[in-house]
This record gives sequence, C-alpha cells and structure tokens, in this order.
Amino acid sequence: MISKVLFKVEDSVEMELEVSANESLLDAAKKAGIAIDAPCSGNGTCGKCRVKVIGGKAESGNQRFISPDDYADGWRLACASQAESDLTVLVPASAGAYKNRIKITELQTGRDKAVFERLRGELRDMGYLGSVPGTQDSGIELLPLALEQASLDDPLGDRERLLRGIAEKLRSRSPETPAPAVDLSLYALRKLPWILRESSFACTCVLREESSGGYLVLDIFPAGAAPLMTGLAIDIGTTTVAGVLMNIQTGEVLATGSGGNGQIRYGADVINRIIESTRPGGLERLRKAISEDSIIPLVRELSSRAGIPLEQIYRVAVAANTTMTHLFLGVYPDNLRLEPYVPAFFQAGQLRCVDSGLELHPNAELLLSPAVGSYVGGDISAGVFSSMIFKKRTYSLFIDLGTNGELVFGNDEFLMTCACSAGPAFEGGDISCGMRATDGAVEACRIDEATMEPTLTVIGNGKPVGLCGSGLIDMIGELFRCGIINARGKLVREGKRIRRDEYGMGSYTITQNLSITEGDIDNFIRAKGAIFSAIRTMLTMLDFSMEAIEDVYIAGGIGSGINVEGAIRIGMLPKLPAERYHYIGNTSLYGAYAMAISCGAARRIAEIAQGLTYLELSAHSSYMDEFIAACFLPHTNGALFT
Amino acid sequence: MISKVLFKVEDSVEMELEVSANESLLDAAKKAGIAIDAPCSGNGTCGKCRVKVIGGKAESGNQRFISPDDYADGWRLACASQAESDLTVLVPASAGAYKNRIKITELQTGRDKAVFERLRGELRDMGYLGSVPGTQDSGIELLPLALEQASLDDPLGDRERLLRGIAEKLRSRSPETPAPAVDLSLYALRKLPWILRESSFACTCVLREESSGGYLVLDIFPAGAAPLMTGLAIDIGTTTVAGVLMNIQTGEVLATGSGGNGQIRYGADVINRIIESTRPGGLERLRKAISEDSIIPLVRELSSRAGIPLEQIYRVAVAANTTMTHLFLGVYPDNLRLEPYVPAFFQAGQLRCVDSGLELHPNAELLLSPAVGSYVGGDISAGVFSSMIFKKRTYSLFIDLGTNGELVFGNDEFLMTCACSAGPAFEGGDISCGMRATDGAVEACRIDEATMEPTLTVIGNGKPVGLCGSGLIDMIGELFRCGIINARGKLVREGKRIRRDEYGMGSYTITQNLSITEGDIDNFIRAKGAIFSAIRTMLTMLDFSMEAIEDVYIAGGIGSGINVEGAIRIGMLPKLPAERYHYIGNTSLYGAYAMAISCGAARRIAEIAQGLTYLELSAHSSYMDEFIAACFLPHTNGALFT
Repeated sequence: MISKVLFKVEDSVEMELEVSANESLLDAAKKAGIAIDAPCSGNGTCGKCRVKVIGGKAESGNQRFISPDDYADGWRLACASQAESDLTVLVPASAGAYKNRIKITELQTGRDKAVFERLRGELRDMGYLGSVPGTQDSGIELLPLALEQASLDDPLGDRERLLRGIAEKLRSRSPETPAPAVDLSLYALRKLPWILRESSFACTCVLREESSGGYLVLDIFPAGAAPLMTGLAIDIGTTTVAGVLMNIQTGEVLATGSGGNGQIRYGADVINRIIESTRPGGLERLRKAISEDSIIPLVRELSSRAGIPLEQIYRVAVAANTTMTHLFLGVYPDNLRLEPYVPAFFQAGQLRCVDSGLELHPNAELLLSPAVGSYVGGDISAGVFSSMIFKKRTYSLFIDLGTNGELVFGNDEFLMTCACSAGPAFEGGDISCGMRATDGAVEACRIDEATMEPTLTVIGNGKPVGLCGSGLIDMIGELFRCGIINARGKLVREGKRIRRDEYGMGSYTITQNLSITEGDIDNFIRAKGAIFSAIRTMLTMLDFSMEAIEDVYIAGGIGSGINVEGAIRIGMLPKLPAERYHYIGNTSLYGAYAMAISCGAARRIAEIAQGLTYLELSAHSSYMDEFIAACFLPHTNGALFT
Repeated sequence: MISKVLFKVEDSVEMELEVSANESLLDAAKKAGIAIDAPCSGNGTCGKCRVKVIGGKAESGNQRFISPDDYADGWRLACASQAESDLTVLVPASAGAYKNRIKITELQTGRDKAVFERLRGELRDMGYLGSVPGTQDSGIELLPLALEQASLDDPLGDRERLLRGIAEKLRSRSPETPAPAVDLSLYALRKLPWILRESSFACTCVLREESSGGYLVLDIFPAGAAPLMTGLAIDIGTTTVAGVLMNIQTGEVLATGSGGNGQIRYGADVINRIIESTRPGGLERLRKAISEDSIIPLVRELSSRAGIPLEQIYRVAVAANTTMTHLFLGVYPDNLRLEPYVPAFFQAGQLRCVDSGLELHPNAELLLSPAVGSYVGGDISAGVFSSMIFKKRTYSLFIDLGTNGELVFGNDEFLMTCACSAGPAFEGGDISCGMRATDGAVEACRIDEATMEPTLTVIGNGKPVGLCGSGLIDMIGELFRCGIINARGKLVREGKRIRRDEYGMGSYTITQNLSITEGDIDNFIRAKGAIFSAIRTMLTMLDFSMEAIEDVYIAGGIGSGINVEGAIRIGMLPKLPAERYHYIGNTSLYGAYAMAISCGAARRIAEIAQGLTYLELSAHSSYMDEFIAACFLPHTNGALFT
C-alpha cells in the first residue's frame, strides 16, 4: 500500500511524499530531507524521534518512550511507526535540534593559544620547525623571481619562462644537486599571463615540495606581494568537529572554531553511524553530513573570520577516529564492526582536498593522520604525538575522553593502546543537560552539603545553559560527596532541589531551567566505568601496577580542566597524586596542527601509528567483570580510591 | 536608460530581461543565454546576427547587410542595434544554426581505420608499441592479485594489504630494482572493501606508472574481470572537434566522431575568439562553449556508442592550436595576438581531466600536445609526428589545411614551420554552401564545359547538402576550367545555372537548394592564396626550389581526398607530379591517438615541438606581395602552374 504523507515542520516547511506500508516515518522523513534527530539511528532505543500524527492512522509497536496520554494525543516514535492511511504529521522544531548542536563557536582561545605556542616550542626542539635556518618545514615556500621580459627575440611561453627562472634560482641555491622537476598548477597558470604583465615579469611564487622530490607552483602573486600561506587542521570527533586555521610557515594561529558533527542525527556513536551507512544512500548521506553540514561551514567561518580567501589554504591535515575518516572520504566502513574488524585503510595516501569535496586551493593536499586499527584511529596517533609521551623515559598513561575512550600506556621504548566504548557523555551527548565545552557550559561546581545549593562556574561567565564534560564530572562528584546520590547513582535525599516525575524518575534541579536526571547519572556512570575498567584491565594485562604511572595525560574536549580529586572520588581515574595528572585538551587537533605546519611532524606521527601495539580488551576475560565493578560510585572495591 | 527586452526564439523559448541603452541586442541575448550566431564576434562584418524587432524601437547604425525593405520590416543586425524603448524581438531559428553545426557524426571509419592501423604499424617499427614483450607502452596495465585473507591474526587494512600484494608482485617481476612507491586512488579505495570481499581477496588492479617512477592504482575489479582500459584522443580545431575512443593497451579503435566547435557562435577564427575572451565573462563563455557544448557531448556519445563507462576512460590526449588549448584550459589568450606574441604556455604539465571540467575517471590524466609557438600549436606537433616526415632523409612539405594554415618543411635533420591565416573555408566555414566532411557533403565534382551541368560525388551517397573542403576545391577548379568564372573569381558566363541577386551578386546553382556565390568564391580564393603564398615565401626564405619537395603531405578535415590536379590548376598547390602528393587526413587527431596509447610517442611529439624552427612570414617583406599575386586563379604568374 502506498500512502501520502504530509510532513509539517513546526515553524518551517511542509513536504508531501508517497510512502509504502513497510517504510518507517523516520525513513520517509529522511527521503524528504526533513531533519529528525535519531541518535540511536532508528533502532527504537533513544526515544528522540517523536512526531505527532494530526491526521490519519499510524500505530507503532514500540510505545516505550511515549506516555499513554501522549500516545492518545497522536505522539509516536517516527522510527517505530508506519503509515496505515494518508497522514498529516507534525514534526516539532525540537526534532531538528542537531542543527543547533552543530553551531560553530570559537575555541577557548586563551588556553589553546598557549598550547599551540608550547607545541611550536616542542617542534623546534625536535628539529621539525625552523631549526635549520632556511629550511621549509611546511614544504611550502614563497619564491620571489625577476624574469627576463618576453620579446620578439625571446618569445618563450609564460609558463616555460617561469619554470626556467625557478630552475635557475633552485640551481643557484644548491649547485651540486641535479635540477628537480618543476610543474605549474592549472590554478597558477590561469593567473600567470596577468601577473607577469602587472609588474614587468617580476613575481612571487608559492612553491610546494612534492613527495617525488620535484616542486609544484601552487600560486603566483605580483612582485613584492607577501601573501599569507595558510593551512588548516581539523579534528573530526564523533560528536564534535574542531578546526584551526594557521599561517603554514610560522604556525601562527589565525582562527579557531568548533561545531557539532552533523552526523549526530544519524546516531550518537560510531556503531549506529556504521549501521546507517549500510542503508541505501546511507554512506553518501553520512559523507555529506560531515562534509557539507560540518566541515565546510567551519572552514568558511574560519576563513572569513581570518580574512583569508579559501584559495589561499594550501593544505588540510585531518585527525579522526577510523570510522570518521572512512565516512569523511566516503569509504564503506562496515568491516570495522565485523570480524576480523579490518578497516579499508590505515593511511589514505596522497589526496587532494577537492576529492573529498573541500573546495580550497584546487591543488591543496589532504593529509590524514594514520590509524592504528579499527578502534584506535588517527586521532590517537596525532594525540600521542602532541602529548609527547613517546619521548619520555618514564611511564605515562594517555587517555582520550571522547565518544570512544582510548588509552595509550608506555614510554620511549614501547606504547600499548586499547579502546573502550564510553559513549558521548564526556562531550555532553546522551545527557539531557549535556552540552559541548562552549559559552554557557557549566565547567565546574560546588554543592553545599547542608543546603544542597550549588555554586557554578560557567564558561564565558554568562547564564548556565548546560553541563560540559568537566562540569558533569564535578557535579556527580559533588552529588556523591554530599550524599545526595548513592553508590548506584540514585537520589537518596529529599528537598526542594529534588524532584520526581510520574514514573518515579528523580532529578536534581541545578537552575530553574537546568536539571540532571537519574538517567543522565546512569549514562555518565557507565562512561566513567568503561574508562576505569579499561585502565585497570590494560595495566593488569601488561603486569604494571597503577603506581607505575608517572604521568596521566587527559585529552578530549571536556572543558578547560578536570577536577582530579572529584574524578578519583567517583572512581573514574586511578588514585594517584594529583600532580601526576595533566589535562591537555584536544590533542587530536593539536597533532593535526603539527602535521599541517611540519612535514617532519607528519612523518613522526606516521611512525607513532606504526609503532603502537593494539590490545583487544574483549580478548581479556576479566574485562566485563571489571566494567561491572566500575559501574558504581566509586567502585565495588571502594578501597581503590581512598 | 533601462529597457525591457522580450526575446522570442522561433519555435522555442521566450525570455525577458532588462537591457541598458548602450548594450547591443547581441550582448543582451548572450546574457539571456539565447544562441545567436555571430561568426565575426559582433564586429558588424559578417551580417549573420539578423533578428526582427516586432515591437518597440531599435535603430542600427550598420545597415550594410539588411536591405531597405527588410529594414523597414524590422530586421536588424543584433550586434549593431540597441533598445530605444521596451522591445519584443523575434530571433529566427536559423540564428542558432551553430547548434546544428556542432552535431556529432561518425568519422569516415573506413579510411580512418586504415590510418590507425598504419599508425600502429609505424609505432611498432619505432619501438613505441608492443615492441618489447611485456612492456606497457601506455604506462597502464592490468595486474591480477591474490591477497592473503584478513583475519584476527592479520588485521591489516584493505589498502595496506593491497599495496603489500602489489609490492610483492612488482618485486618478483624485477628483483634487482628497489621497490617503487605505490599509491591507491580514492576512486579505487572506495571500491576496495567491496571488491576484496567479492572474491576472497583476489582482484584485478588497473595500475598506472607515474612520471615520478611510482605507481597509482587507478581502479580495481573482481578477480577474473578483464575490463577494457580505454583512452581518448581529441583534436580541437577552430571549426571542428574530432575524437576517437580506443583500447589504451592495443590501440583498437572503439568509436570515432566529430562535431562543430561550439565556440563558432563567438567568432569564426581565432582572432575573433581571442577578442571575445577579453570581454567580461568571455573567457569562461568560450571555455564552456568548447568544453560543455562540444567536447563533453562528443565524449558522452563515444562512450555510449562503445558501451564504455566514462569512469573507465583513464587518459585523454588533446591536440589543438595554441588559442584552442588556452581557451580549453580557461587561460587568457590575449597575449597571443599582441606583440611579442607570447603564449601563456607551450606545454601544460601534469593535469587531471577533471581540472578542465571533463568528468571521466577522477584521476584520468589530460595530456596536451605541446605547442611550438603562438601560431603553430600542438596540432602541428602531433601532425608532424603522424606524417612521419621527421624520419625521412628526403625533403617533405606538410600542409595542415585548417582555419589557420600551417606549413612544415624539412627532413630528419631540420624542420621549419610557418603559419598563415587561411580562414575556415577548407572546413566549410565562411562559405554559404560550406559544411564539414560528413554525410551529405559534396566531396568531388565534374562540370560539363558545354552545358555547365555538374556531376557530384556525395559522402554517404545521399542528397547533397553542402560542400566540404575537397568539394569546394573541385567545384572552383571546375568552374574555372569551364570558363564559368574568370581569374578574379567572377562569373562570366550566362545560363540557367547562373543567377544574380538585386545587388548584382552572382551565384552558380548546384542543385535546387544549393548554390555557390561570388562571395564564397572570393573567400575561398583568399584562403588558397594564403596557402600558396606561404609555401612560396617559406621556400624562398630557405632558398629551396619547389622541385626540391619530394613529398607533399596534406592534412586537415577537408574530405576523403583531394583532387591535386584541380588544386594545382587554381593555383592552390605548387605544380609538382601528382604522385608526390598525399592526402593524410586529420593528422592532429592521429598524433593525439599516438600520444594516448604510447608514452614513447608522447615523448617523441614533445621532442618534435622543441625541434621545430618557427619562421615569421610577416617578417619577410615580400609575403604581402606574394599573397596578392596568389589571390587570382591561378596566380598573376600563370606559368607557375602549367
């Protein structure tokens, strides 16, 4: 049976289409291009895709997330309902909320600026940045030229004249080496006749060293011009995309920003995204969601804020987990989740940005940080580089708190890594009051034990809007310290800040518009449990004690810092002296930044990826037991944390 | 003043737009996307852009091509008229006739097949094709592989597994040489996970050798597949575009075709095209006219006729004159016509087809035959190669009869070249009864001296539609032999086949719908005069007598042959024994074909371009005198031809 379904999006468009009897309303909405959030990717497990049938008949098997009153009113889960007649369906504005979640905001510039500064220092110390005077660490340089003017006696073509001039210049620079091959991009060729005649055949070239040893003229400017040559670093997280635009020669940061990953409407975690990619058109939908909805707007924003034309971006370095790199390039990722868990690629080879739909300089390179395996991606290779743990004699633990949690343990001799599924809680996902670490996010809090009144620290000092990762860790630590929640995360005190809904679900009121529910706390406890049990299982497998860890580096976009005491109190991090803990921010982005400005750093990151040994936690029989024990506050074995 | 102009295209669309007082109706039509032929590019010299003003007021200064009656009726030259009020303008269907002129037809397959066969023989003899067993002259090969299956113990990524397999195979083939760099195209990477799992990790790769010495996997197919690997050769003439699709390994021709150059509506010759390119938006208009209106439809037609998907075309080789290569790549050509006549490029370097807007395999290379200078282009380098005159001990003269006429004279020791502006007469342009050498074209004729009745030979043996180059040479030779026209090309006999219009312009009636006018004859005489005077001036400059020419190779799309006797009789070609003349067809296309299938041939063509010495005819004071003397039938010095 074919029914006509008219979607009416609240405060927005109407769209009618024909729908067959076995098609869910969620699938139909996708076809019509109507955005409905479905973090569980339509599996009926998140309850987010609520729509209201205001005309016609549509029953649904799954009524779990709809109260009987609401069901009677016409509310349905779009993923669990089919049209049984022609329908009129109201899509509430909140169903497309991901659109707000992908809004671009600036990074915490103060903190990040210092990180980029520190990283440039490290690169210099390692000989990767400006260490040898005259070397071009980025492989891209400005070459000023004064060519002989064309005449009837010397009617050489403009291109051949330019290449002759460059060859002479390169020869004079190193007379011993044979002349390298030099080519001209079509982009520069199109500008060439104009530029040469603008200043009597003098000009400035942007020259890139190629992996083959030759050179490519990327761009050309009039003599005396000092164009900014820029590059971009992008971290594609499952939940968040962050970028930084920099001067590719000096590393100077020109603009930073981050936004949500536009794929979140197809699933909150990588497994649901992979499932979506196996559906008809799914792979291309996901590719577009990350490229067109997230990266391109972010790049445009950065370029316009810095006043740099897109054509002057000559390189993009991307770090991301393995699923994200597959989806970004439009490569089928399903084998990542099927035994033997083999990605289509670790390294992506030589790519142009334009191949992935990024229209910058037409010859701009696309560098991808190489993956270690299906569940330890290029974000970790880049992160380990920027943490610098691979240079240390002493043992370090690196923890990336993302939607997936990844751990790396080792020193300058060996590095072991493993992954666990933490869920998006640390990035504010799957938490009703969660949000990214941006203006309005509560990043720290104190609760008065007697009155249960909270004191909040808000990013940007404005009105609190939600809780970012660090705020969440603090909040739950404080609720537990004050005895407001018990070891299982249930609310056990009463008072004006404690409420319960008709089904008995408790919540703690933070502000008039902000509260944290027992469901949120439960999601968070599973996330922290996954991290702690992974740490313990890995160290046990390697026969190391917790005390062997000299330094713990915590990475991820959780906020401006982490309350280590609180995190230990709730059993998320091992009990070690506080000074051993270092919160080092979005190391994936910082590693991508290093790749963009330094060819040496890019090579080193590739070596790190090759040198990391992957441990499969699920191969260790005790991991599940460890996880269950860690899903308490702080742990079934409380002695570990006191 | 702004007026509203409504264009009504006969039997087609209507379009209204606002037009300012100083804008010509031709420019307004261009903006509205309405096709109006203007071979003189709107200079008021061709009289082709006739439109009829049926409402409102529009006077025009230039009334030369409009009779007083027609003018009173509202007929105007669009290029010479401006809106003086709101207008309604009728655009006759014939104004967009270029659309028919760019229709794609098959090449004369019989003849061309033999040429391609001969060329393959020559390439084999020269060691450029299949000479050494196992070598890949095209640089593209099929490599079958059986990879180890992925397992939990060997979870290498698909891409890395494939590259490992290729490296092993290449090493086993030449154990001495160091392992070359191998990369995978994104196109192949996207297919890889599917293909590998389709036949237990066995597959067939399309491997291209790169100029850097490494390899790129262009494509991947299931094990046992024997995909056709194809390439395209394209000749972009000022008037005509021709193409051939071939098996890139064997050279086997899969489809051929030709069509008009879509740029003809912006001017019949290169100078008018260059002028158009200097107008706002002109360069992009011309680029699109050749790419979107001519090459892309031709490529689609060839691909669909041969049943080859566009993605299986891995290389395109293009030969064209210097203006055409500039316009095809979107490079500003104005310096070609300004002293010191310097092109933006002789060679185009390494390009991808997609950079020029041709969407074939995303990594398909675009090879351009290199130019000698502004007026001797890559079509001549390619043509000299396929004529093989560069291998001969004896002296040869190579003549390319195109819109521009180019000559090459020399042997295996030296090659001199010059160019003259012949106009498009030999390709049927600028001739009221002219057409390309395709079905319906009169390619030869006899006239009975007594009755003046013609006997026609028509390509395809159907109804005569027009005259192609060889038919025109024959026709004018016969009219002259029969005393119907005199030495100045004027009709001097009377009879039922002779007509005169109200202005006294005579014409000879060929069939009921076909006649040749004194204007046509005049255009043709100037074309043949340009060729002959160029031959004479060049040989005089080099101090060679005409008799020194052992062989004359005539190239160009004039038809299936040339009546040498007739061409000598009218003073177009020097008086030499008929057996010294060889009509060798579209040598530009044949040279491009050789480039596409053989890297050795491509290198040799580049050497030829570098070895050709250019003579500037206009630097020789006697050239103008020679030209004027040659603008008679046969010549002011008739003794040269008897």
